[in-house]
Amino acid sequence: MKVVIIGGVAGGATAAARLRRLNEEAQIIILERGGYISYANCGLPYYIGGEITEKNALTLQTPQSFFARFRIDVRVKNEAVQILPDEKKVIVRRLDDGSEYEETYDKLILSPGAKPVKPPLPGIDGKRIFTLRSVEDTFLLDEFIKRERPKRAVVIGGGFIGLEMAENLKNLGLEITVVERLNQVMTPLDYDMACSVHGYLQKKGIRLLRSKAVTGFEEQEHGISTLLEAGEAVEADLVVLAIGVAPETALAEKAGLELGARGSIVVNDRMETSVPDIYAVGDAVELVHYVSGRKTLIPLAGPANKQGRIAADNICGGDSHFRGAQGTSVLKLFDMTVAATGLNEAAAKAAEIPFDKVVTFSPNHATYYPGASNMTIKTLFDPGSGKILGAQIVGFDGVDKRIDVLATAIRAEMTAADLEELELAYAPPFSSAKDPVNMAGFVIGNILAGRVKQYHWHDLKSLPNDGSVIRLDVRTDAEYQAGHMEGTVHIPVDVLREHLGELDRSKPIYVNCQSGLRSYIACRILAQHGYDCYNFSGGYRFYQLIEHDGGFDEAPAYPCGVKL
Amino acid sequence: MKVVIIGGVAGGATAAARLRRLNEEAQIIILERGGYISYANCGLPYYIGGEITEKNALTLQTPQSFFARFRIDVRVKNEAVQILPDEKKVIVRRLDDGSEYEETYDKLILSPGAKPVKPPLPGIDGKRIFTLRSVEDTFLLDEFIKRERPKRAVVIGGGFIGLEMAENLKNLGLEITVVERLNQVMTPLDYDMACSVHGYLQKKGIRLLRSKAVTGFEEQEHGISTLLEAGEAVEADLVVLAIGVAPETALAEKAGLELGARGSIVVNDRMETSVPDIYAVGDAVELVHYVSGRKTLIPLAGPANKQGRIAADNICGGDSHFRGAQGTSVLKLFDMTVAATGLNEAAAKAAEIPFDKVVTFSPNHATYYPGASNMTIKTLFDPGSGKILGAQIVGFDGVDKRIDVLATAIRAEMTAADLEELELAYAPPFSSAKDPVNMAGFVIGNILAGRVKQYHWHDLKSLPNDGSVIRLDVRTDAEYQAGHMEGTVHIPVDVLREHLGELDRSKPIYVNCQSGLRSYIACRILAQHGYDCYNFSGGYRFYQLIEHDGGFDEAPAYPCGVKL
Repeated sequence: MKVVIIGGVAGGATAAARLRRLNEEAQIIILERGGYISYANCGLPYYIGGEITEKNALTLQTPQSFFARFRIDVRVKNEAVQILPDEKKVIVRRLDDGSEYEETYDKLILSPGAKPVKPPLPGIDGKRIFTLRSVEDTFLLDEFIKRERPKRAVVIGGGFIGLEMAENLKNLGLEITVVERLNQVMTPLDYDMACSVHGYLQKKGIRLLRSKAVTGFEEQEHGISTLLEAGEAVEADLVVLAIGVAPETALAEKAGLELGARGSIVVNDRMETSVPDIYAVGDAVELVHYVSGRKTLIPLAGPANKQGRIAADNICGGDSHFRGAQGTSVLKLFDMTVAATGLNEAAAKAAEIPFDKVVTFSPNHATYYPGASNMTIKTLFDPGSGKILGAQIVGFDGVDKRIDVLATAIRAEMTAADLEELELAYAPPFSSAKDPVNMAGFVIGNILAGRVKQYHWHDLKSLPNDGSVIRLDVRTDAEYQAGHMEGTVHIPVDVLREHLGELDRSKPIYVNCQSGLRSYIACRILAQHGYDCYNFSGGYRFYQLIEHDGGFDEAPAYPCGVKL
Repeated sequence: MKVVIIGGVAGGATAAARLRRLNEEAQIIILERGGYISYANCGLPYYIGGEITEKNALTLQTPQSFFARFRIDVRVKNEAVQILPDEKKVIVRRLDDGSEYEETYDKLILSPGAKPVKPPLPGIDGKRIFTLRSVEDTFLLDEFIKRERPKRAVVIGGGFIGLEMAENLKNLGLEITVVERLNQVMTPLDYDMACSVHGYLQKKGIRLLRSKAVTGFEEQEHGISTLLEAGEAVEADLVVLAIGVAPETALAEKAGLELGARGSIVVNDRMETSVPDIYAVGDAVELVHYVSGRKTLIPLAGPANKQGRIAADNICGGDSHFRGAQGTSVLKLFDMTVAATGLNEAAAKAAEIPFDKVVTFSPNHATYYPGASNMTIKTLFDPGSGKILGAQIVGFDGVDKRIDVLATAIRAEMTAADLEELELAYAPPFSSAKDPVNMAGFVIGNILAGRVKQYHWHDLKSLPNDGSVIRLDVRTDAEYQAGHMEGTVHIPVDVLREHLGELDRSKPIYVNCQSGLRSYIACRILAQHGYDCYNFSGGYRFYQLIEHDGGFDEAPAYPCGVKL
């Protein structure tokens, strides 16, 4: 058996190694257009920032090491330029001299990946504009920085690569402006969760321009001007373009393979394309979202690696299936961690999946043990069954742990009741006896059982101001005086029972505290005394983040649909 | 409704707060023998070590704050001395003046906890011998240390409290000797996993005496002598006794409640005892092990809190059930983290549950990103279905995350195939595209599919030395020369294919590398060339830890049953 693999990173390299482990006799050829295989894709920004100092660290595998270990014929700088499915042949170009040759295959695996999106804007090909996808891109930018000693950079795009680059360039001492087309960075997060990130970027001295479309670039002798709508411009010494990636599927298209969303390659759950004996894996393929069941693209390393393994299994006579991806992802941003898994509100709405949500605020470990910090967790769940649909977390230490627990829970189709029961490891340096994930389960459980009703920040503008409802803040005097929502009555929870007489039982009461816990207790007191009451999700702390972000003035990036 | 709760820590305090949230009208009384309620039990060692500096941090809740928030009548230094179930009364003694009174109840919750085991050894009541269970214990030891400025401490018991105390006293500058009756510390771990901890304690300058029973104590004018079997003795200025806890159930016994294992209180899954209207929760109750289904004791804060909540729900007319505990636990030991969940080998054998196991060695995050460290994961699984039965992890950063993911997987009754599919959050500072948990799944998957057979360290002594089997080390020259198992032939994996001629196809081959990965590849090469071969689980690295620990000379603490 002769297997040709097009693309030697992540999915392709994994498939090759697995193929060899399963079949010692197969002839395996990797055709890689770039100069490197199986490199540390996700480490590239950290090479720029100097966290990773050795070039070798990025390229641990070489064609030589891959041959020694696996007897795989890795041909770098060999680009597959055409697939001839009927003849089961690939036409390959040697990039060093431009010569071409044919390679036959019994089985073909496409792992072409995705390329940075580069819109056809004026000046887009300027020498001060960089993308960061390959090792070559990285060395180019690194050399530029060392040679030109830039002082200012514009990063276009507030996603993973954009913010990782903002951090790493900032760490090199550059002044950074991040330009984002949307009203928020990090679209795995909903707008309300992204507000924390906006504030944190500011705190870290990174300038963030949101809702700004780039219209072009003007290169100057000693710099580059990034042009924005309405005549604005940002001057810098270099630009990093990080507005996303698009499946690299020209080759697949030319070969007549069925294409799906955004030009991605359509595969079944065995990673087979529409053409016999051709498999495809990685960032270029369309996949099924594990939670929504919808077709989507999730260009992440984890799914790519799993798909590579599955394609190899099936080529070797196995029957392995890819059951979908859920988009579990994490970003380090200085000391902050931003993570998500499953559906956010935008995705749930797009897939027309009914959901409700809770926002909880929990310490990463026992607060009496030094170094505790809080994280905000937003959990989406099915309002009927309580099944967990998705989670977003913004915080510091321990965020990555909770997103992995929630990702596992989602994979297992767990409900909120299951989260309540999870028995997670507790010692003061690691967690609390009630872990933040348990807490999310408890809060959802209380909602599902009807023990409390809640309202959200985006419900505030619909609250009548005619005196027909009561807004109640149950925090301490000091907290209330330091800032509160407009129009709130103030009764601390600990004296609420004595002051019930001051609250009109005929009016619904909208209660808030700092994080949502004391106001829940207040709601339980009120409800048992016959009041119709609502707990403010996320507390004043969450309100303040959104207020500071201008969220009450501007429409959020997605429509909010939960009704009062 | 009038609810009396005996014991105001963890389960009792949680039950009280939940009761109030569910029922604003109930009369709720907590009777607490000690002077504090709802204190930071698990934080006590860190107060001794000076990590936690404020007394207040340990006792965040006070009777006053509990009354203000929940209108709960908390009576500290009030000891319930007798329960009269027929009359639904409790006789209570005021510890300040010794006077007694009766308190009636409609519902009674017992949350008496567990007390440190204090065997009746000569000298056990000496003033230099301390236990660490209550706030009072802690202040007593703290004052002793400040007053006497001890130089040397003996810690008896190598469990959670023992090792936490060893670390904290060491951090105060004391010389520490840990005396352990068994051949290993930390019995949630199997012996082979505990070997890492033994070596680490030594590295941290802590003297560890294993397989040593204490026979008594002799107090001297300026110190205390801990007497061991065979006439040995260890001199010190103080002794910490941390050999475990026993359910505090004298009261329950006297009241005629059914008792179970080790005198614990028998409850059903609604936390009801054998006597109507009496519930029990926390360290004093017998519970069902979630994985084995056997009755057991798991004195941990997580289950206690969940049980308190469940008892309160049921008292208020709900129908909540405790579905068992799985013993998820974690220890910080200086920079090391030790964690376990589900069944270890000893527990699986005791419950007669068939299992197989894998030992994997994975970095906590991308190795090219600074600060990566490896962790050893031992995963037990059902050899038929691949269902995960338990896991133990020893390592550094990121261990707590993986044990929580595995705890969640066990709760969801996931199989190894499910672990392979888990989509966990990856970015270089947090994990690898194939997370350590995925890796455990892959390795188990390969065993279940028959792609590789393995052998273990405890199989080595049964391997014949008569030349009928081949032992093969496939590491590099440098690795081999730095140390190898006796009797191994050496062929690096990368040149194995060229040297197959040197290996007799009629003999089984027992292969090892450093961690088990390269030897797996070697096994795949060999198996496909017709060899009968076995991969050494955990690699030479694991072998070395056990060898250094003397594990090949001494019988391990539990019998090892997996056969060649």
